[in-house]
Amino acid sequence: MSQVGPPQAALVTVGNELIHGETVDTNAAWLAQALGSLGIPVVRVFTVGDVEHEIQEAVSAAMEVAELVLVSGGLGPTPDDLTKEAVSSLLGLELCLDKTLLAGLKEFFQSRGYRLSPNNFSQAEVPEGAVVLPNTRGTAPGLLLEEGSTLVFLLPGVPRELRGIFEEHLELLLNQRFDGRTEPVHHRMLHTTGIPESRLSELVSQHLPRDMGPLTLAFLPDPRGVDLRISARCANAEEAQEWLTKLENLLEPIIAKWGFEASTGDITEALNRTLSERGDTVAVAESCTGGLLSKRITDQPRSSEVFLGGIIAYQDEVKISQLGVSRLAIAENGAVSEVVACQMASGVAERLGASTGIAITGVAGPGGGTLEKPVGTVWVAVSLKETVEAQLLRLVGDRDAIRVRAAQHALALLYRRLGYAEMKA
Amino acid sequence: MSQVGPPQAALVTVGNELIHGETVDTNAAWLAQALGSLGIPVVRVFTVGDVEHEIQEAVSAAMEVAELVLVSGGLGPTPDDLTKEAVSSLLGLELCLDKTLLAGLKEFFQSRGYRLSPNNFSQAEVPEGAVVLPNTRGTAPGLLLEEGSTLVFLLPGVPRELRGIFEEHLELLLNQRFDGRTEPVHHRMLHTTGIPESRLSELVSQHLPRDMGPLTLAFLPDPRGVDLRISARCANAEEAQEWLTKLENLLEPIIAKWGFEASTGDITEALNRTLSERGDTVAVAESCTGGLLSKRITDQPRSSEVFLGGIIAYQDEVKISQLGVSRLAIAENGAVSEVVACQMASGVAERLGASTGIAITGVAGPGGGTLEKPVGTVWVAVSLKETVEAQLLRLVGDRDAIRVRAAQHALALLYRRLGYAEMKA
Repeated sequence: MSQVGPPQAALVTVGNELIHGETVDTNAAWLAQALGSLGIPVVRVFTVGDVEHEIQEAVSAAMEVAELVLVSGGLGPTPDDLTKEAVSSLLGLELCLDKTLLAGLKEFFQSRGYRLSPNNFSQAEVPEGAVVLPNTRGTAPGLLLEEGSTLVFLLPGVPRELRGIFEEHLELLLNQRFDGRTEPVHHRMLHTTGIPESRLSELVSQHLPRDMGPLTLAFLPDPRGVDLRISARCANAEEAQEWLTKLENLLEPIIAKWGFEASTGDITEALNRTLSERGDTVAVAESCTGGLLSKRITDQPRSSEVFLGGIIAYQDEVKISQLGVSRLAIAENGAVSEVVACQMASGVAERLGASTGIAITGVAGPGGGTLEKPVGTVWVAVSLKETVEAQLLRLVGDRDAIRVRAAQHALALLYRRLGYAEMKA
Repeated sequence: MSQVGPPQAALVTVGNELIHGETVDTNAAWLAQALGSLGIPVVRVFTVGDVEHEIQEAVSAAMEVAELVLVSGGLGPTPDDLTKEAVSSLLGLELCLDKTLLAGLKEFFQSRGYRLSPNNFSQAEVPEGAVVLPNTRGTAPGLLLEEGSTLVFLLPGVPRELRGIFEEHLELLLNQRFDGRTEPVHHRMLHTTGIPESRLSELVSQHLPRDMGPLTLAFLPDPRGVDLRISARCANAEEAQEWLTKLENLLEPIIAKWGFEASTGDITEALNRTLSERGDTVAVAESCTGGLLSKRITDQPRSSEVFLGGIIAYQDEVKISQLGVSRLAIAENGAVSEVVACQMASGVAERLGASTGIAITGVAGPGGGTLEKPVGTVWVAVSLKETVEAQLLRLVGDRDAIRVRAAQHALALLYRRLGYAEMKA
C-alpha cells in the first residue's frame, strides 16, 4: 500500500452473530469515527463469520487496500474463536505462550473468585513478534502484528474492551506511527431542535462562504433535532480551531432560534443547567408521553437539583384529582385541549411547589384518534411564574415517534421561554 | 457459484455515512436475519463508500462467493448516489428511462404538493432487462438484475424502504426461485427475566437431549433479560413446528420461574395483559427511575385500559405530600428503604384508586451513594389488595443501566406476584 499521503484503514469484523444478523455491528462505526478523527479514513469494512478461511480472505483483501488493518472479534476463549489462529497462519507466524499474559490472566480470575479454565490458557498465546496491548476490561488483549509496512491490529469484539484498548493504546501508537502524514479532523457540534433538516440546510447554505478552506459541514438529523457538525481537516490543531471558531461565529446567529448548547447533545442538559443557574425548579405533568418527559429530564446526572417530580395523569380522573384540572374544562374541550394543557402545567407546578411546570396531553395512537383530533394531535404547555403558554403540535409517525417528538417540543418550549425571560430581565 | 444445496447470499452496503461511522449499519443485520429465516445464510458483508470502483469491486467479490447478492444504499436522487450506475456498468448494461416509473414518481410528488426536480428524473432510469420492485414508501424502487445464474438486487438504503421492498417482493421471489433447495429456519422465542445468561445456560443444558436433530438453541441476553431462541432447520414446515413444540415443552417448566409470554419480548406486554384479564389496574410511584417505569408500561398500545397514572416523587417532600409517605419513616430509614418503598406502592395505589401499585426508590448515581447504600442500591415494592411486598436490589452498571434494570425488576415483581395470586385462587 502507498506510504505517502494520509494512511488509509480497512476493518474486518468477525463473528457468526454479525453475519447471522443477531448482533448489529456497532464496532465498525465506532472505529471508523475514532480513526477518522485521527485523520485516518476507513475505506472498506469486511464482515465474515467465525470461519478460518473467510477471516484469512478478508484480512488479505483488507491488506491489499489499506496499510492499516483492524480486525475485531474472535479472540475469546471458546473453540469458535479463530481470529488469532487464522491471522497467525496467514502471516506465517507461530503462536507462543506469553508468561506475563498468563500471570495476568490468573490474577484476573483469582480477583473475581474463579480459577483459570483450560480454555482460557489459549488467551495467553500470542503470535511471535506481536506487540501485546493490555486489556484492562477483559481477558483478551489486543495484538499488533507488522507485515512489511502494513500494521494489523487484532482487537476483542466486546465493544467496551475494544474501545478501551483503542483509547489506551492505539491512539498514541497511530499518532506516533503516522506523525506528519495525517491531517486529523477536528469537529464541533452545533445542536438544534424544532427545525427540519431541509429548512436548516437551506438557511445555512445561503450564508456559507464560497471558499470553505479546510472546513466541511454535515447535517445529522434524528427524531429529536438536527445536529450541525462542522469539521476542519488540518495538520495544525490551532489553525483548525481558528477555522472552526470562524464558522461557528458565522452560524450561531443564523441558528440561534433553534440552537442549544449541550456536551451530550441533549436539550435536557441545557434546560437543567439554565434552570439551575436561574435558581428555578421544574415539575412535570404528562398524559400521552406516560413518563418519557420526566425520564428525559432525569436522564441527566444531578437532575435532582432542579427536578422536583412529576404526575403522570393518564386517566382523566387523575388529571382532576392530582392536578386540579377542572372537570368542566375536560367535558367542554376534551382532555387534549389548550385549556387542559395549561391547567396541567400550572397545577403540577403549584402542587409540587416548583417555579416552572411543563405539561403534555395528546393522542399518541395507535387508537384514540378522531376526525377533529387525529393521532398526532398534542398540546404542550409551560408555566413560569404567573404566565402559562401552550402550543399545538400536529406530529407524524408511530406511537413511539409521536411520544419522542412531543417530549422534545415540550422541553424546547420551556428552554426557549426561559431564554426570553432572561433577555427581558 | 454452486447451484446445488442451499443458496448463499452476500451483502454489499454502500454509503459514505457507513464508512465514516456516522451511521451504524442496521440493514446488514436486518437482511441477514430475514434471509436466514428463508433458509439462505449470509456469508459475507462488504461495506464501501459512495465510490464507483469500490462499489464495483465489492459487488464482484460478492458475486464470487454467493449466487445471491443484495446491494443496499446509493439509489437516491443526488449526485453522490452511484450504485445503479456502478453496477450497470460492471454488468455491461445501459440505463433506460422507465416511463411507468416516471409517471409514478410524478404522482408521488404531486400528491405531496411538490414538483418533480430534475435530480429525481434519474430515479426513473433502470438498467436494461432489470425487474422493477415497486417502493411504496419512497422514491427509489428496488431492482433485480440477473447475471448468468447470479441474482443481484439493488435496494434503497433507507431502512423502512428496504424492509418494505423485501417483505412485499423479495420474500416471494426468493422462495419461488430457490424452491426445494432451501431449508428454511423456523424460530420460537422464549423470554426470561431475572436470571443471568450463564446460570440459565447451565440449567438448560442439563436437560437437553444428546441428539438435538434439526434443533439449535441460542441465548440472546440484553439488560432486560435473556431470550432463548429455539430454531429448527427443516424443509417441511409442519415437521419443524413439531420439533419446536417438543423442545418448548421440555424447556418451559425449567424456565417457568423467570419466563413470560410476549410477542414483543417486553414484559410490560405480559403484565398489561394479565392485569387486563384480571380486571386489575395499576398506578406507579417512582423516584430514581424518574418516569422510566411508567414509560415502559405506556410503551404498550392500549395501556390506558390498565394504567391509571403515576407519581414521580424525586424529592422527599413530594413523597410526603403526594404519596403520603411518613416523614418519620424517611427520617429514620432514609428515602431508599424498605418501608418507604412499601409506603410509596400502597400510597400511589390508594391515591389514584388503582388495585395494584408499583414503587421504586434507589440510588442510580453517579452521585448520592454512601458506604451503607452505595450506587446501585434500589428498593422495589408492589402492593396488591392489602399486601405489600418489597425487594432489595444491588445493581451494577452506570446510571442508565441501573435505571433500566430497576424498572425491569419492579415490573417482573408485580407480574410474578399476580401469577402467584392466580395460582392460589
